[in-house]
Amino acid sequence: MARQMFGFIALLCLYAVTQGLPSRHIQTKHHEPNKDQPQFKEKYFTQILDHFNFNSMGNGTYDQRYLITDQYWKRGYGPIFFYTGNEGDIWEFALNSGFITELAADQKALVIFAEHRYYGKSLPFGQDSFSIPEVGLLTVEQALADFAVMITALKPQLGASECPVIVFGGSYGGMLSVYMRLRYPNIVAGALAASAPILSTAGMGDSRQFFQDVTHDFESYAPECRDAVRGAFQKLQDLSEVEDYSRIQAAFSLCKPPSSQKDIHQLNGLLRNAFTLMAMLDYPYSTHFMGNMPANPVKVGCDIMLSGADLLQALRDTAGIVYNSTGILKCFDLYSLYVECADPTGCGLGFNSLAWDYQACTEIELCFESNNVTDMFPPMPFTEAHREQYCSKRWGVIPRPGWLKTQFWGSALSSASNIIFSNGDLDPWANGGVRKSLSSSLVAINISEGAHHLDLRSSNDADPLSVITARKTEADTISQWVKMERRRSK
Amino acid sequence: MARQMFGFIALLCLYAVTQGLPSRHIQTKHHEPNKDQPQFKEKYFTQILDHFNFNSMGNGTYDQRYLITDQYWKRGYGPIFFYTGNEGDIWEFALNSGFITELAADQKALVIFAEHRYYGKSLPFGQDSFSIPEVGLLTVEQALADFAVMITALKPQLGASECPVIVFGGSYGGMLSVYMRLRYPNIVAGALAASAPILSTAGMGDSRQFFQDVTHDFESYAPECRDAVRGAFQKLQDLSEVEDYSRIQAAFSLCKPPSSQKDIHQLNGLLRNAFTLMAMLDYPYSTHFMGNMPANPVKVGCDIMLSGADLLQALRDTAGIVYNSTGILKCFDLYSLYVECADPTGCGLGFNSLAWDYQACTEIELCFESNNVTDMFPPMPFTEAHREQYCSKRWGVIPRPGWLKTQFWGSALSSASNIIFSNGDLDPWANGGVRKSLSSSLVAINISEGAHHLDLRSSNDADPLSVITARKTEADTISQWVKMERRRSK
Repeated sequence: MARQMFGFIALLCLYAVTQGLPSRHIQTKHHEPNKDQPQFKEKYFTQILDHFNFNSMGNGTYDQRYLITDQYWKRGYGPIFFYTGNEGDIWEFALNSGFITELAADQKALVIFAEHRYYGKSLPFGQDSFSIPEVGLLTVEQALADFAVMITALKPQLGASECPVIVFGGSYGGMLSVYMRLRYPNIVAGALAASAPILSTAGMGDSRQFFQDVTHDFESYAPECRDAVRGAFQKLQDLSEVEDYSRIQAAFSLCKPPSSQKDIHQLNGLLRNAFTLMAMLDYPYSTHFMGNMPANPVKVGCDIMLSGADLLQALRDTAGIVYNSTGILKCFDLYSLYVECADPTGCGLGFNSLAWDYQACTEIELCFESNNVTDMFPPMPFTEAHREQYCSKRWGVIPRPGWLKTQFWGSALSSASNIIFSNGDLDPWANGGVRKSLSSSLVAINISEGAHHLDLRSSNDADPLSVITARKTEADTISQWVKMERRRSK
Repeated sequence: MARQMFGFIALLCLYAVTQGLPSRHIQTKHHEPNKDQPQFKEKYFTQILDHFNFNSMGNGTYDQRYLITDQYWKRGYGPIFFYTGNEGDIWEFALNSGFITELAADQKALVIFAEHRYYGKSLPFGQDSFSIPEVGLLTVEQALADFAVMITALKPQLGASECPVIVFGGSYGGMLSVYMRLRYPNIVAGALAASAPILSTAGMGDSRQFFQDVTHDFESYAPECRDAVRGAFQKLQDLSEVEDYSRIQAAFSLCKPPSSQKDIHQLNGLLRNAFTLMAMLDYPYSTHFMGNMPANPVKVGCDIMLSGADLLQALRDTAGIVYNSTGILKCFDLYSLYVECADPTGCGLGFNSLAWDYQACTEIELCFESNNVTDMFPPMPFTEAHREQYCSKRWGVIPRPGWLKTQFWGSALSSASNIIFSNGDLDPWANGGVRKSLSSSLVAINISEGAHHLDLRSSNDADPLSVITARKTEADTISQWVKMERRRSK
């Protein structure tokens, strides 16, 4: 199973994988119509630049991208299924959320995927979007207001004034869909929030939970796998303590030998991140969502770890599943394959990763740690103090812990209605979300064999029963919401 | 009843009255402790300057004023009664909302009156607060976030972490208390919104309603009163058509003769505004809330109108109830007694009026007209086009009609809970608010003999039965909310 590395570092951008919350990633694809795929049209909406300050930019606007298809729609009557775009190119989500279009075909819905400001092609200030102060208009509240204003404006234009709107989202997109229902029940009749870590990102979780749950996935496959991973990291630590950098370079096929503890820290981060991605994307078939991933990557990784090869090389080859899926790389470049940022689960690479880093420095709180006690990784603390230090230096901002909890209902979520919180038991984000129903209309669906928002993906022959059942419940619930909304607005 | 005018124009500032939504006004008073009054302490809270942009002002802060008294509080247990300050000096509201402290004494509550940013002494940029772009941080959303952040921070400091919070507000303050319950159910267990024109200010009403209802108050006292007022305005119109400006000056005791249609328009606005204030403040006892007002000012005004004197002089003397309550003015100065702005019901004078003008130019939509058909006033249209023209010139902003409706639940208010919408039938703002209960926990209370948020005022021997009954229902409901919240948060 070991992968050879060859090819050119210059090609890296083609194979750069993204990390952490899904798809802060970004290779632009050529989207040719395909009769098996929905026929999205790509459009732009003239959007308010600053919803919360009438004087900041002289009432400016920017072009917000969205994808739309009416091929399934019962015109003027069927509901609107609206994806609240998250941290990436909107095409990535449209092409990896086939359940929404399958459901649209069933329920005769109009489908819209709206891109989140500062991601993909929805850059309010073009190439200057990540300068200071231009980046300051990147907030959750602005993104939600974008969606609210867009829906309000598009409905009459599309002849859809009477059509109930259901929002969908995965991961951070799922958080946004929850927030849309909380904030705009006048606009949104219900929300399917798939794998939305709505509690842990608001500082309402245990900082050890995430990497503990990544570990748990590997340990569930085989306790020996967990032990092998821990052993490999220990070996790396031993070598770094005696500064045997050339041995480390050789074992990990690094393009340059490490030369400091900083480089070792970077290597540890890069390796840990590979396990994060395999756990998140542990789908039963191969995917090309956040990079290329084989079917059942946790199994594939553990099989490598337990293949009897040298532990360090096994660790390298397991990481290769993520960083070198095509086997094209001859060596690993520590600082271009992985970039440390304010999100310990990774920000990915490129423009979108800048935007996510900024969000993790402001509203989204992701102070997750590994500690080698509750998880199999080296101790890598990331406290509020680390975060503040990094963010003030990088972006000139001081995070305000607790803001998201203040702003989005914190412990009073139970007074909302019409939200499905779906989570997959394999997903390390799951336990940062809502796992128990909060009321009869705030329903938690737990998918025992599901990874990160598997339920949003197209049906597949390899789908486990648990996701098939979950999708059925989701479809029925959404259909009920649409009926309720028609009655309410009569 | 006719009042003589004498004294000095220079003293005007002392007697300037405010107009429109309550108390955008502002003579600073000397607040001496009085054993009949609650013993408020005046404090300042270090508040985030821009909740919605982490980079706009480098994470700055400003000092937000609040008043607090724990004299009634069952320490650590009793609820917090929090007044969401509106467009004026917070002392004005504290001194004119005695029901809240009476209720606090009954229910052992801690009482806080928080000042709205950009009013009173809560000026984020001091004397520069109304420059562009500094004024841009004056929005409803920022004000709500101020309250949310203040409550969240003060609770643990005060040893009140477990104490349910009930918000109170009158008029625009009542709108804010509704919004607090919609937006922050995690922070606020219920809201008493007194005379909150939550629909008409969001563009969801009839533009003729307001002045029609002002007219109705006078007509209810005596149809002849309405006819006399209409006749007086007609006489003024006739004189202005023949440009008999000296006669107009004499009849209205103007300091300078009018010399143009613009002056006549200003005079009409000033006069109409006097009727607005008498209708809003038609309390059964004399008040000093928005200027000095006699008991039953509508009756007083109509008695003057029907006294048999010359109609123009009668109109002048009726306006004198408002503009010259002490009789100190020798003549009326058209442009200092009344300033036209983006709120046709008046913005008042001074710094607070600047802030309200800005709000009426941005989020608060007040396109009310008089037309002499559905009301007794001269036709004075104020359309969205007028508003946009004025606001872009005055403040460099373009209003976004519909924003408040998008942002604050518009037609889906019925999915909220724990709000009392109280309104007085005498109040021209009433029919811009919620007049029918929307659910068992969204209760409309209509006070048949009440003017603008009479229910928030201290008990008075002259109180009509309808307000006594209303306050009793409010007290019982609030006590229930507090109990519910204790159960919920257990």
